[in-house]
Amino acid sequence: MSLGLGVIGCGKVFDWAYAHLIDGLHMRDRAHVSAVYDIDPSKRRQAAARYGVDPELEGPEAVVGHTGVDAVLVLTSINEHGSLARAALEAGRHVLVEKPMATTLDEAAALLELSKTSSGLLVCAPHTLLSPTFRAIHAAVREGAIGRLLTARARYGHAGPSWAEWFYQRGGGSLFDLAIYNVTSLCALFGRARRVTAMVGVAIPEREINGSTIRVEADDNAHVLLDFGDSCFAVVTTGFTMQMYRSPAIELYGSEGTAQLLGDDWAPEGWELFRNSEGYWRVNLETDRQWQWTDGLRHLVDCVESGRSTITRPEHAYHALEIVLAAQAAGTDGVAREIASDFPDPVYDAAGLAPEKPHLVHDHRSSRE
Amino acid sequence: MSLGLGVIGCGKVFDWAYAHLIDGLHMRDRAHVSAVYDIDPSKRRQAAARYGVDPELEGPEAVVGHTGVDAVLVLTSINEHGSLARAALEAGRHVLVEKPMATTLDEAAALLELSKTSSGLLVCAPHTLLSPTFRAIHAAVREGAIGRLLTARARYGHAGPSWAEWFYQRGGGSLFDLAIYNVTSLCALFGRARRVTAMVGVAIPEREINGSTIRVEADDNAHVLLDFGDSCFAVVTTGFTMQMYRSPAIELYGSEGTAQLLGDDWAPEGWELFRNSEGYWRVNLETDRQWQWTDGLRHLVDCVESGRSTITRPEHAYHALEIVLAAQAAGTDGVAREIASDFPDPVYDAAGLAPEKPHLVHDHRSSRE
Amino acid sequence: MSLGLGVIGCGKVFDWAYAHLIDGLHMRDRAHVSAVYDIDPSKRRQAAARYGVDPELEGPEAVVGHTGVDAVLVLTSINEHGSLARAALEAGRHVLVEKPMATTLDEAAALLELSKTSSGLLVCAPHTLLSPTFRAIHAAVREGAIGRLLTARARYGHAGPSWAEWFYQRGGGSLFDLAIYNVTSLCALFGRARRVTAMVGVAIPEREINGSTIRVEADDNAHVLLDFGDSCFAVVTTGFTMQMYRSPAIELYGSEGTAQLLGDDWAPEGWELFRNSEGYWRVNLETDRQWQWTDGLRHLVDCVESGRSTITRPEHAYHALEIVLAAQAAGTDGVAREIASDFPDPVYDAAGLAPEKPHLVHDHRSSRE
Amino acid sequence: MSLGLGVIGCGKVFDWAYAHLIDGLHMRDRAHVSAVYDIDPSKRRQAAARYGVDPELEGPEAVVGHTGVDAVLVLTSINEHGSLARAALEAGRHVLVEKPMATTLDEAAALLELSKTSSGLLVCAPHTLLSPTFRAIHAAVREGAIGRLLTARARYGHAGPSWAEWFYQRGGGSLFDLAIYNVTSLCALFGRARRVTAMVGVAIPEREINGSTIRVEADDNAHVLLDFGDSCFAVVTTGFTMQMYRSPAIELYGSEGTAQLLGDDWAPEGWELFRNSEGYWRVNLETDRQWQWTDGLRHLVDCVESGRSTITRPEHAYHALEIVLAAQAAGTDGVAREIASDFPDPVYDAAGLAPEKPHLVHDHRSSRE
Repeated sequence: MSLGLGVIGCGKVFDWAYAHLIDGLHMRDRAHVSAVYDIDPSKRRQAAARYGVDPELEGPEAVVGHTGVDAVLVLTSINEHGSLARAALEAGRHVLVEKPMATTLDEAAALLELSKTSSGLLVCAPHTLLSPTFRAIHAAVREGAIGRLLTARARYGHAGPSWAEWFYQRGGGSLFDLAIYNVTSLCALFGRARRVTAMVGVAIPEREINGSTIRVEADDNAHVLLDFGDSCFAVVTTGFTMQMYRSPAIELYGSEGTAQLLGDDWAPEGWELFRNSEGYWRVNLETDRQWQWTDGLRHLVDCVESGRSTITRPEHAYHALEIVLAAQAAGTDGVAREIASDFPDPVYDAAGLAPEKPHLVHDHRSSRE
Repeated sequence: MSLGLGVIGCGKVFDWAYAHLIDGLHMRDRAHVSAVYDIDPSKRRQAAARYGVDPELEGPEAVVGHTGVDAVLVLTSINEHGSLARAALEAGRHVLVEKPMATTLDEAAALLELSKTSSGLLVCAPHTLLSPTFRAIHAAVREGAIGRLLTARARYGHAGPSWAEWFYQRGGGSLFDLAIYNVTSLCALFGRARRVTAMVGVAIPEREINGSTIRVEADDNAHVLLDFGDSCFAVVTTGFTMQMYRSPAIELYGSEGTAQLLGDDWAPEGWELFRNSEGYWRVNLETDRQWQWTDGLRHLVDCVESGRSTITRPEHAYHALEIVLAAQAAGTDGVAREIASDFPDPVYDAAGLAPEKPHLVHDHRSSRE
Repeated sequence: MSLGLGVIGCGKVFDWAYAHLIDGLHMRDRAHVSAVYDIDPSKRRQAAARYGVDPELEGPEAVVGHTGVDAVLVLTSINEHGSLARAALEAGRHVLVEKPMATTLDEAAALLELSKTSSGLLVCAPHTLLSPTFRAIHAAVREGAIGRLLTARARYGHAGPSWAEWFYQRGGGSLFDLAIYNVTSLCALFGRARRVTAMVGVAIPEREINGSTIRVEADDNAHVLLDFGDSCFAVVTTGFTMQMYRSPAIELYGSEGTAQLLGDDWAPEGWELFRNSEGYWRVNLETDRQWQWTDGLRHLVDCVESGRSTITRPEHAYHALEIVLAAQAAGTDGVAREIASDFPDPVYDAAGLAPEKPHLVHDHRSSRE
Repeated sequence: MSLGLGVIGCGKVFDWAYAHLIDGLHMRDRAHVSAVYDIDPSKRRQAAARYGVDPELEGPEAVVGHTGVDAVLVLTSINEHGSLARAALEAGRHVLVEKPMATTLDEAAALLELSKTSSGLLVCAPHTLLSPTFRAIHAAVREGAIGRLLTARARYGHAGPSWAEWFYQRGGGSLFDLAIYNVTSLCALFGRARRVTAMVGVAIPEREINGSTIRVEADDNAHVLLDFGDSCFAVVTTGFTMQMYRSPAIELYGSEGTAQLLGDDWAPEGWELFRNSEGYWRVNLETDRQWQWTDGLRHLVDCVESGRSTITRPEHAYHALEIVLAAQAAGTDGVAREIASDFPDPVYDAAGLAPEKPHLVHDHRSSRE
């Protein structure tokens, strides 16, 4: 049984990332592409040719309604995420939607409701919770390895894309595009945030995009403070203002020690653990250097095949969206916002958690199955 | 000519730190201790015995008024800093005051005024600006090595002292005791802050101090956001809630690269620089592993001897105090505060900036002069 | 034009490593598999099924003689390398032969002679000289970045394979299987070695292989000293006796600085450069984390397509073989051996040397083209 | 009771290193300098003035014979080590002798014999076995933390002194001056070496020393291979040919894991441990950044005060000397040499092994007692 995929949006996120994961699923007869659509005819045709499917579908609804499509991938620009995910769920399809799941809380709330009754599964990006490294940290924290979580730092940023204007226009911005990763990861560890404040702005007012100068309208520089209750806090630093870093992605400070994720939460490079009772740093090497941030699709296929629930819950994505919107608001007037929503703790199954012993893994780059 | 020192407050800050630096100054006939006072008779007598001075001075004013005292070190608990520094300046003494220079802005402003007319120099802790490593970073940033500063992170925290209650009582707290270092360092690089917000609280309500349990009243956990104008921001993470870290102390993100200070800003372990134009990290090893955070005293002696102005300006300390007080306030109601004060950019002289070539330094621990 | 490949030996080296690279070449219509042979029928059939080719070829000569085969990959156990490579060259095929190219100097010399007159190209593993990171180091050294090379260390080892006996039997051993990488890399930097000595032995006399205990007959532990003339030396440390390391793969000490390759020379993780004149370490991040140690095959296809000479010269492989054989001999009697052979310095073309600026590379794991 | 010290040789080793440790012992009334001698009158007088002792002693025998001298420090150039140590032992003094203890095996053997009957203790440099970090590694290895030791690498080198000719003349050289540290450390872990070979030479034939060019006569570049029996080996890489490094000082590969000492064995910067059964690196931070390589003197005072035996045994120093002499010989003809001597495993007492918990150590640079 191979799952039929319908792809809406065939830009870089598809071409550079999801397509690679789909190749792997295809080789194992677990999924195949049945239909594609992109508003740009050249991208649409290129994707269609790759998979030998109809290059002239007339719109996203043709993907959703295609009889060979079991699951829809919503990889469009941000503004369409909510409505396309909704249409696909209403049609009984499984849905993977890129982040954010929607741009307003109302739209996201409707999606949440729908997901409870729909026959299709809803998987919302980011998929950072699925990496073996994140799972190891989550397990360590839940087992009390560093005591009670008290404070944390997270960061994700880069120099900013130079290939598309939308990142810098309304609906784009570093909070929506970048901060949402760290926010999702931190909440998976701390639980729900109660309160948010932020400093948010445009630090580089003009950018060169594909050779021409544009004015930046969406935030490109932000720090978000999260209050998890009981005076436990975290900060997320983000922006298209960070040329390079060399620091942990996530630092977790607990009452009995410290844990930190190296690399980025969407591309981990191992993790480190200090426990007061041990007195040394445990440096855990990355166990899966081939892990991809598109892993939510593999997870969706797993869940469809096994009948299990998804680890990443839509409520979690809703919560992250509420936080990002609150940060945007706090960024305008300097006043902290309360956060109302909640979400269940991720429940991991045992699968995939037992890597080979590191000293027996010799070649990290060769493809093994 | 050896400068006569009067020490007020002979606790751990004196005993563990300043005394060591005084030994070095003494060996080179640059300074000597003429008078000491501590409210605790045993500490007073121990210090007096160490230097062969009168063990029974009756109060701090006796130190200030002692004829052999040219410079007064104010190393008491925080609440007396302002008034003692004032008395010493009024008596025409040079003054080194530990941080914060005062606990209210009014008191600090009065001290500032007084320092302009006094014949004595006023050096306010922290002295982080004086380390060779910080100076190297400051020079690189001012030369444009990483372009325009856009965003930054800094952190300083530890598990919290277990030997004294006052850290956890009104007048103590992690903002006053710890955050002020990072705030001082960041402002030396970015210039004045315009606006501040924060999350501040008590994450560990009870502590064991010297074997008995106390209730914590002052903040032990905080994140402070700083707005430097033009949407350039920084965050300071601090607390008696961080058991151990393994991350840069200060990360500076500029439009053309990144610079970061390793170790702590009061105990640097080298620094790193990435420039987009170079494409690699420059890892600069620590050039002075013997540098002490008490170095302001050596600097005070230098300035007295040479007649030069101090690099660390009292206005800078005032600005840092205003920020910390604003962070405390913002921590209570979640509303950002404007910052009014300003300070001059530190002006370094050339002295001490040209270390030996690193490959010619063989033994970092032996004492060389 | 797609090059027809004939694969002789379909074990792990093929299955885990070369097959992955062939997939990539196939996707770009640059190469395809036309014939396969393995002495083990199940491996042969599995490989044949993968490419839809004849599963019942009767021997390696059928691969060599197959009309669809332009290039032969010799991936068998070590003892057959020389004779199979010879047969393929004699048939006018291009040849890629895994290391070592032969097990005796006579056999290797004959191959070398043949390669000069054959119409086919001969590419000998290891292919470490082809990685962008190695090329960057080679260029830096040749430009005098660290002055004159004086001394060096290299290491490559692991816990030892647990899946095949031949590694521990005559013809196997850590010198042949592992040391040859470092030897090849070091000679590419220092030039020819003049003299060799070594300590070589069996440190773990019994091993568990696939569940049964075997006696180890071939060396599993060795240090090889190389004399490059003018009292410039290097050491290669190798063995199936190294469970894990955390040190540079190759350290090069020159009269004006130090350069080192991180990771392994067959799987680089960036490189570092210290120049006395600069006084800091340049830490160069890995520019191609997808680079595969099978890259010699891509290089062979490049050379066939472009008509250019190979960068990796058979003379270099011969020299490495002479060194390894001399190390084996010196290991038995403790007497240093002279090395007679020489080889030309690798000549790189410009292709592939200009990576994107590191701060513009965002996602190292996604597949880009 | 304060031990009276007699110092013979007041050059850099005294001035930069031992004097600092003596200051600390003096402050605690554990030792004081009673007599000094240097062949250079200006050095002699400078040292004498420092301690207020007779500046005009006529020779080393006057130090040995001085009634106030309990222990003699032999810090002269290498050639006098043996005879001075002998004279002091014969006079019943305790002796600390810098490395090597002598320049011939006969001289060293005589010293060894004498030490067995003398009333004075004999402590031979290097003192690397005494550092808390080395002791932690030794304990871990003896407890089997990494199984059976199989292979190892060690390195110690630098750019070479530019202030004294003797390093490059007969009696100097990198084997005597540098390699002896690593050799001493490795043998403390592996036990006695059975066989040695080496490559040794002069890689930089001319040097600038104090502004004038000299010809180098002693080795400045070497690799030494050690055979510990049962095919367990180690390599020591040394030379005045290493401008800078960034790699572990000592790497120990055992059958169940890896341990390594960072920094240099005479100036450790923590250590790392990987155990197959754990699967992560334990990174142990340096627990005593103030530890000095002159610590043998403190140890000598400890032993005199407590009546305990020394941890560092003269037999160990003899063994190291035999190895270095064998390496010199093997370097000339390329033939491995057998090693005849043996030595007892260092026996540590419990003192000084329990550092504070790392998360409770806040300020590594301040002086605490």
